[in-house]
Amino acid sequence: MERIWTAELGQHVGERVRLAGWLHRLRQLKDVSFLVLRDAKGLAQIVVEDPALAERLAQLPNESVLEIEGLAVAEPQAPGGVEIHQPTLNVLAAAAEAPPLDLYRPTLKAQLPTILDHASVALRHPRQRALFRLAAASMAGFRSALAARDFVEIQTPKIVGAATEGGANVFAIDYFGRPAYLSQSPQLYKQIMVGVFERVFEVGPAFRAEPHDTPRHINEFVSLDVEQGFIRDHFDVMETLNRVLEGMLAAIQEQAADALTLLGKRDAPLQLPRLPHAIPSIHFNAALDLFSKANGEDVRGEPDLAPVHERWLGEWASREHQSDFLFVWGYPTAKRAFYTHPDPERPASSRGFDLLFRGLELVSGGQRLHRYQDYLAVLAARGMNPASFEGYLEAFKHGMPPHGGFAIGLERWVARLVAAPNIRETTLFPRDLTRLTP
Amino acid sequence: MERIWTAELGQHVGERVRLAGWLHRLRQLKDVSFLVLRDAKGLAQIVVEDPALAERLAQLPNESVLEIEGLAVAEPQAPGGVEIHQPTLNVLAAAAEAPPLDLYRPTLKAQLPTILDHASVALRHPRQRALFRLAAASMAGFRSALAARDFVEIQTPKIVGAATEGGANVFAIDYFGRPAYLSQSPQLYKQIMVGVFERVFEVGPAFRAEPHDTPRHINEFVSLDVEQGFIRDHFDVMETLNRVLEGMLAAIQEQAADALTLLGKRDAPLQLPRLPHAIPSIHFNAALDLFSKANGEDVRGEPDLAPVHERWLGEWASREHQSDFLFVWGYPTAKRAFYTHPDPERPASSRGFDLLFRGLELVSGGQRLHRYQDYLAVLAARGMNPASFEGYLEAFKHGMPPHGGFAIGLERWVARLVAAPNIRETTLFPRDLTRLTP
Repeated sequence: MERIWTAELGQHVGERVRLAGWLHRLRQLKDVSFLVLRDAKGLAQIVVEDPALAERLAQLPNESVLEIEGLAVAEPQAPGGVEIHQPTLNVLAAAAEAPPLDLYRPTLKAQLPTILDHASVALRHPRQRALFRLAAASMAGFRSALAARDFVEIQTPKIVGAATEGGANVFAIDYFGRPAYLSQSPQLYKQIMVGVFERVFEVGPAFRAEPHDTPRHINEFVSLDVEQGFIRDHFDVMETLNRVLEGMLAAIQEQAADALTLLGKRDAPLQLPRLPHAIPSIHFNAALDLFSKANGEDVRGEPDLAPVHERWLGEWASREHQSDFLFVWGYPTAKRAFYTHPDPERPASSRGFDLLFRGLELVSGGQRLHRYQDYLAVLAARGMNPASFEGYLEAFKHGMPPHGGFAIGLERWVARLVAAPNIRETTLFPRDLTRLTP
Repeated sequence: MERIWTAELGQHVGERVRLAGWLHRLRQLKDVSFLVLRDAKGLAQIVVEDPALAERLAQLPNESVLEIEGLAVAEPQAPGGVEIHQPTLNVLAAAAEAPPLDLYRPTLKAQLPTILDHASVALRHPRQRALFRLAAASMAGFRSALAARDFVEIQTPKIVGAATEGGANVFAIDYFGRPAYLSQSPQLYKQIMVGVFERVFEVGPAFRAEPHDTPRHINEFVSLDVEQGFIRDHFDVMETLNRVLEGMLAAIQEQAADALTLLGKRDAPLQLPRLPHAIPSIHFNAALDLFSKANGEDVRGEPDLAPVHERWLGEWASREHQSDFLFVWGYPTAKRAFYTHPDPERPASSRGFDLLFRGLELVSGGQRLHRYQDYLAVLAARGMNPASFEGYLEAFKHGMPPHGGFAIGLERWVARLVAAPNIRETTLFPRDLTRLTP
């Protein structure tokens, strides 16, 4: 008999079926026991009336791996409306001991460090793993939106000879006796690849040696990177990002609807954010003006948005534009990375943008410089050594179109979707100042 | 006027169109010049009769970035059967100097080190970039074949606290003053994740500090990883791999047909390999027997296949089974990684397999141990410290189903497809003993 998923039980009422999964819970009542079996798709309730079988099950620690054959019977009170009667049991692997966390509870009752210490088991909890179904669907939606727009997937090296974005916050490696670094972002490579494919994307790890111990920072994250050639300006890039976010949300709806249900409240699935077809956008200076006027506090001329400004702008976009997203563009050129294209109308402002998602920065992007001479000038002005960027500069020496792009942090995206207070909750195996395992 | 791709010209005969791309080549004849423009999709020929325009173009180094508007005219002798007349020119970015390689030649006339030194430019060559279209399509096919079979995509950390496959050949990092390593493979994490999603896959970088300077080794590569729970034995894993390879070849046909044409010989596109619906499979011992009998040289009892054996077996599979692929399984347990499941019938042989592709190893895989006690025993027998594997072992302590998986090296796969003699040819920016840039 072929195994079926627990989620398919409804199509097999009246048949004998085979299930396989983990001993999620055993409830022993006086005359009957209820075994809840968990597989990758959900849960199934198995009614155990045979005392000998109930006794065998009671000897097994939770998380033991079982095969169950039995009769699928409609039962409105069972999860999914079907339960298994007359079961037979095959133990595929007995757990050695009870799990360190009670996986059968609706939510894990433990502090975050404990959950992370025991990630190998904690991730099995239906709500925990649902977070990573959102991540998987998001990646799929990201790629399909871009592939449909002629973007080509690339994989660029993570061991690099020079720090991508300047020398700070970079992990050093011993590379056969030579110094090397872990890539902080695929920025330079994706720009080079615009010269090859015009439109490229990459999903891969990025590494930042920032010694920050905050709920928003991890030291290794998954970066969803895009770079696009032959743009008019940064608005073309923002348009692409708008479409990509639509693709990501659509993929979540299509591929992870069950995860949204699990992560919702009682009878309502998790609500996805309001994403207008054209995300509202505001210039950095106008954003500071707006904040100043509304809050009676003059913040005009500030070099960056503080978290309090971002939060207020997020509320403003929600209220005035019914949008959970807001573009802010025109950040001061001096505050952005060296490759940022200045606004030709007012060069102290850049064509760099951030996307705020519910008042927190989710994406950074913008138009990049594309002329060789501009790179030489900006590296000199910032005291950076052109020799460290030789292969990168070669692309510009030999003709690059106007281009721009952005990067979305996958773990941050999922954290915002579910309003997780700590990014570690939406990271499979987080790396931070103190955490290197599991 | 919206820009169109060069590949779309055939749909616009008789219309004025806008193209954009790179100055691929300018041929100046007595009364007319021919400009070949290259964009991400192909080439277009532009007929320049205006002497002033021809003179402007002649001043521009190849690889300058241009916009061209003109009339699309059917011309059987032009590439694609259409050329542009009456062009107007807009220079988006003049190249600073002529490129270090002649990109307009049918193949790059340079030694591999020169090509790799100038990857930023060399990758623009139509044949070079076609290799990475095969890679992109392969990744897409890999994922779609697996997603259709309920596999979930994961992203696991590349900074790890212990060497995955034993202590050798691992790059060390300074992780905030603590020792850490670059992941040699996602093996341990993908196994842990079988406990969560049962079926998982990952596409990501893997790092091997092997000090080998050979045409087959690079020190960072893209690993296409799969792990599958609730298998009967390794044959289930081989079946999945068979379906995945079908998906990868189908995606290449669908998404990269133009790349196959470019990489073929004159009138014939590159032939994809013969992949039977059931790849032939042979036990390791039987393979050595077969070789011994056919070659009059007794190699029975050898602990591994030598390259000469693999080559001969590849020819045998081609001749006897009309297959470019051959599974060899049952490698000696002692020669495989510690997590390899022995064959219960003859424990000195394992349930590990290799897939030979045209007589060279492409994939390694097999069934893994799944019982906690088996892990404790094998680590002790191999003198490995269980404390280094704490999070990994925790998964097995708490119930893991029989499972197995495999890993395909992306660059190696593409190298075999196109019969590239050196894996660096199919690696975007290779990392090896001496090469850390670009």
